[in-house]
Amino acid sequence: MMSQVKKNEQGTVVTPKGYQAAGIHSKVKRKRKDLGIIYSEKPANVAAVYTLNKIQAAPLTVTKESIATENKIQAVVVNSGNANACTGKQGMKDAYSMRKTTAEKFDIPEHYVAVASTGIIGLEMPMDKITPNIEKLSLGTTEEHAAAFGESILTTDTFPKSTCYEAKIDGQVVTMAGAAKGSGMIEPNMGTMLGFITTDANIESETLQTLLKEVVDETFNCITVDGDTSTNDMVIVLANGLANNETLTPEHQDWTTFKELLKKTCEDLAKEIARDGEGATKLIDVTVTGAKTKEDARKAAKAIVGSSLVKTAVYGSDANWGRLIAAVGYSGADVDPEKIDIAIGPIQLLKMSETADYSEEEATEYLQNETVEIFIDLNIGDGTGKAWGCDLTYDYVRINASYRT
Amino acid sequence: MMSQVKKNEQGTVVTPKGYQAAGIHSKVKRKRKDLGIIYSEKPANVAAVYTLNKIQAAPLTVTKESIATENKIQAVVVNSGNANACTGKQGMKDAYSMRKTTAEKFDIPEHYVAVASTGIIGLEMPMDKITPNIEKLSLGTTEEHAAAFGESILTTDTFPKSTCYEAKIDGQVVTMAGAAKGSGMIEPNMGTMLGFITTDANIESETLQTLLKEVVDETFNCITVDGDTSTNDMVIVLANGLANNETLTPEHQDWTTFKELLKKTCEDLAKEIARDGEGATKLIDVTVTGAKTKEDARKAAKAIVGSSLVKTAVYGSDANWGRLIAAVGYSGADVDPEKIDIAIGPIQLLKMSETADYSEEEATEYLQNETVEIFIDLNIGDGTGKAWGCDLTYDYVRINASYRT
Repeated sequence: MMSQVKKNEQGTVVTPKGYQAAGIHSKVKRKRKDLGIIYSEKPANVAAVYTLNKIQAAPLTVTKESIATENKIQAVVVNSGNANACTGKQGMKDAYSMRKTTAEKFDIPEHYVAVASTGIIGLEMPMDKITPNIEKLSLGTTEEHAAAFGESILTTDTFPKSTCYEAKIDGQVVTMAGAAKGSGMIEPNMGTMLGFITTDANIESETLQTLLKEVVDETFNCITVDGDTSTNDMVIVLANGLANNETLTPEHQDWTTFKELLKKTCEDLAKEIARDGEGATKLIDVTVTGAKTKEDARKAAKAIVGSSLVKTAVYGSDANWGRLIAAVGYSGADVDPEKIDIAIGPIQLLKMSETADYSEEEATEYLQNETVEIFIDLNIGDGTGKAWGCDLTYDYVRINASYRT
Repeated sequence: MMSQVKKNEQGTVVTPKGYQAAGIHSKVKRKRKDLGIIYSEKPANVAAVYTLNKIQAAPLTVTKESIATENKIQAVVVNSGNANACTGKQGMKDAYSMRKTTAEKFDIPEHYVAVASTGIIGLEMPMDKITPNIEKLSLGTTEEHAAAFGESILTTDTFPKSTCYEAKIDGQVVTMAGAAKGSGMIEPNMGTMLGFITTDANIESETLQTLLKEVVDETFNCITVDGDTSTNDMVIVLANGLANNETLTPEHQDWTTFKELLKKTCEDLAKEIARDGEGATKLIDVTVTGAKTKEDARKAAKAIVGSSLVKTAVYGSDANWGRLIAAVGYSGADVDPEKIDIAIGPIQLLKMSETADYSEEEATEYLQNETVEIFIDLNIGDGTGKAWGCDLTYDYVRINASYRT
């Protein structure tokens, strides 16, 4: 079956019907925009997933509370530069205050507002900068408005992450778009990453929540930059229903199309986050097949993208398959040590755990690509899984040895 | 009670009675010695632990087979430069051949020989270099002989690791000494590290094995350099009984003294391995107290030494306690987010999860020490645990981006 889902190359978070966005420089960060809003003209149904870190930042608590009230969100306010994490009671006050200011600005109930923050942990929020600038934020639906929002959520990211897809559902065009930030503290299970997804699809919050969890497990939770899990991560999806399709459920004839829409959106953002890992020069795209189970395949794939030795070897364009097989071996996945195939791009390195006849020069040349594909076949089942990561470079060390100072 | 265990600053693996050693340059590595032997004049009782990686190198299989036969080892032969891992049937042949050549050299049964290898994975062993050089190895009991052995087991290590302790047991002086290598692929649960421990204590192999497992969990398994777990790791203890103490058992009056002997030996080697992590400039020494359980304390400590963000912050002398608390939060240990104390050396950074009144300058100055101590009190129980690691530097990337090439 041909995919019903088409990429909209120019699309942004304001492309789905009824969304507006804005971004501004509030001077929490030195130069770049650091405060943004997404707004839906109609209260949207909502689904969200959060970091698994037991230390969770104040805005997460506030957002959970908002969503729990009525399962509707109309505005998402985000700041970067200060994570409002480990900030005690003052931090909670500040997050509530951001919510309140935003609600008053749009004259909507406070529980229609979600709050997200990213940046340095443990510093009190400079509310004297945040509050007046929330008031100043000027919404719009142009590319510039979306770009301003995209920039306002970044920290050490080197480029904004954005994607947009469309599909016909019940003969209606349904659009979905996302913006994200990533970079450091990125690890499966929500490293410091924020993802904001807008769609005009008509779907209940509960149905969307179930689907989001499933899709996040296959996308955002399969990326790693440095194995650290942040206190602030969140992926939130707003669905305002303006596309006027019949309410989507797993029984809907176009359910798989909608699922694909969400998966492609999340996968694009996840891969961009991996590619833009702190200091990264290459995206590592791992596919594991032939595992006993899907979970095993994912474990093996994640171990590879999480291995510092693999990451440095990719940086150095060194086809060091020993490090690949070692990572598979300690991943926890079931393996038969005699049956492993390994390839990078089109080049087979290992066949049934023995060196294949390959040219070291060609392998090195392949590894100079900006996207390095690694294929592992465990040859003991039909479980498949994917994971994405990036190389580990001098710049990762430089960025993180001097982040605050 | 005063400790009965004293450090012997000059001691080496040949200090315990009845041990000899040697090391030679077999030209597997370009310049440094790469082939060594420890020999006990009397077949020694033995205990060993191995990597948990499911891909295990050929020498591990051969050593396990040797030990399983009679629980006695008289000679340990080690080469560095080539790991003999993922080398298929030929690898097994080569490991057996190393064992045979060594057995013939000393005219002892083959199953009295243990074999260990470390170095590049996936390359066939250059047996034309190994075999004649095993024959050439010339044993002795001088400091030079021990040093030659110590050098012969290194790969990217920048210094040899060695320690020696003595204690009186039954009025007899019992000596224990160890040599180790570490550096890359170092992670809890046996990263590429080899540890060789000699003692003249009189103890049964089974008793020693039980104790070794317990001690390794508190020492070698609490270090991490890069989170990768090697295919080749092994810690082996030989106990030849020449100290003539009564056979040691948990009922023996000096059992705790013997345990301390083994723990101090392992802890010294583990810390030296952490300090000499690839590219490292600092040892990170983490103590967690107040955890619900000992296991939780260890989890939290390990998460900290395993965090790339903590490691780069230590490298940059940045007292970024946000990264410390984030690591504690995702470690899996039970925590109360409101109750966490954090100190580095004598400087309290966080008290009950709120910033303490400390001087950023003093903190930065403290972090310039070669050993950085981090103390975490979770304040919810009485579990304590330790872990050791090192900072993450430009040199880690340099070394690993170009290891093979």
